[in-house]
Amino acid sequence: VVDGALLACQADPALQLLLVGPPEAAGAVRNALGPADRDRIRTLTIHDRPADNAGSWVESGVRTAVLAVAEGRADAVVSAGNTGATVTSAALGLGRRPGIRRPPLAAVLPTLTGRILLLDVGSAVDPDVRTLATHARLGAAYAAIVHEVTAPRVGLLTIGTEPGKGDRLRRTAPEILSATVLPSGATYIGLVEGHDVVLGGKADVVVTDGFTGNVLLKGLETAYAEIGPPGTDVPPRAAVLLGVAGTVVVCHGAAAPEDLAAGIGLAADLHRRAAVPAIAAMMDNHEVAHDS
Amino acid sequence: VVDGALLACQADPALQLLLVGPPEAAGAVRNALGPADRDRIRTLTIHDRPADNAGSWVESGVRTAVLAVAEGRADAVVSAGNTGATVTSAALGLGRRPGIRRPPLAAVLPTLTGRILLLDVGSAVDPDVRTLATHARLGAAYAAIVHEVTAPRVGLLTIGTEPGKGDRLRRTAPEILSATVLPSGATYIGLVEGHDVVLGGKADVVVTDGFTGNVLLKGLETAYAEIGPPGTDVPPRAAVLLGVAGTVVVCHGAAAPEDLAAGIGLAADLHRRAAVPAIAAMMDNHEVAHDS
Repeated sequence: VVDGALLACQADPALQLLLVGPPEAAGAVRNALGPADRDRIRTLTIHDRPADNAGSWVESGVRTAVLAVAEGRADAVVSAGNTGATVTSAALGLGRRPGIRRPPLAAVLPTLTGRILLLDVGSAVDPDVRTLATHARLGAAYAAIVHEVTAPRVGLLTIGTEPGKGDRLRRTAPEILSATVLPSGATYIGLVEGHDVVLGGKADVVVTDGFTGNVLLKGLETAYAEIGPPGTDVPPRAAVLLGVAGTVVVCHGAAAPEDLAAGIGLAADLHRRAAVPAIAAMMDNHEVAHDS
Repeated sequence: VVDGALLACQADPALQLLLVGPPEAAGAVRNALGPADRDRIRTLTIHDRPADNAGSWVESGVRTAVLAVAEGRADAVVSAGNTGATVTSAALGLGRRPGIRRPPLAAVLPTLTGRILLLDVGSAVDPDVRTLATHARLGAAYAAIVHEVTAPRVGLLTIGTEPGKGDRLRRTAPEILSATVLPSGATYIGLVEGHDVVLGGKADVVVTDGFTGNVLLKGLETAYAEIGPPGTDVPPRAAVLLGVAGTVVVCHGAAAPEDLAAGIGLAADLHRRAAVPAIAAMMDNHEVAHDS
């Protein structure tokens, strides 16, 4: 984490970091920093030392970091800790947007022809169809605002494009998704398969449950890390939590310093674009237009 | 299909093929074959011409091919048609082994360190825990007999190795899998994740539902086809149907001639090893040992 933070500061001279951790880690950071960096990287010590295990350090760290954003002392949270704890802390500490049951994690994957937004990748593991439809709307808004895609194409991940293929959820979802009005002129383009997430070209946003999305993401990210990405555009290996009132980026628990730096860079970019309020406004306007 | 059949015959001088298809395709095959090949490649014309659409050709083709195996006129079925139709035709035409509800499709994927058997990859899309446990046993028997793994290690695919992670199915499955006695000295080694299917080394057999398995397989196979496999061992891009009383190999609907030839080669190898009766005997002996 310390190496990642230093890399992120080198890449972005305007960046300021607040590192949240236990007292020992804060001391290690202070020792690792030169005088110039001490002004840009502050540390926030977790004082509610948990008695039980190391996992609790991560959870109280995430809670402390979320609180710093809620209180306006930081603009975004980046976590490489327990995903479930981060989602729960962010949902409670920052608040969910109206209509969001389980905020989805959205990851960007490189494809042969560009990039694709895959969601959910680990938050809503047993979603119903209505949750998938909400995720389709959030993903479309993200692609329009952050990836600057005009009229994003949204697909549903399944295992065959003939009618009747797929599991229970996927057999009922297409009817609801077809009837869902998406923001920003986005269109539901129907069913896509695992290979479409690698090839790209068919959809800008791919919607799936958090279990399947997480398995596919971890498989493809590891394949790309070991044998090279499919295209020239290599997005950060990090996921964005959508549907909460704040900027939250989740990196892998085993993230390399480069990955953590890329996640920090993504969070800074999202904050500077005011992406989270813009997505919220797009969802709200769309609700109003759709309801009227 | 014709190009794949010719490639398979070139690779294996002892191979004999029975090509099943509509009358026009049979004529095209006869014209494409030289006199030497005409003795090794016979054609079987589908006469129950369907009135409706091309999909029905595939289904009646699969039914005809399964019937040829059931009647002893062929030793194995290889299909690049509709997976669902192949599974259903094989289950009905060849019979399921005792205790098999939905025969699983097992695919072999290359890993950084060797190969891994992934099942199910598209047959049982909404399995219960008992079905996963049966698939664990079938996969262990396949790895022992076909991959010649001593004491195969069987893992359950999920999205985090901490207790309580995963969806409903994955939260209840570990307890049943831990209590399942596996054949051939195989052991259930616990939870694995998407990256383990790429890295290898942790499990020889990875069990999952047919939806997640199909999505991951299509993603990884396409990534490996586009940017290269992770290791030097490149298994056929084909899946084996386990738990039916016959040798059945399923290739992709859009299989290249090389893939189809590899699938045919796999089917011939399985037949020569008498793999299907050996797996059945291992499951039966194990049942008896386990019940007594």
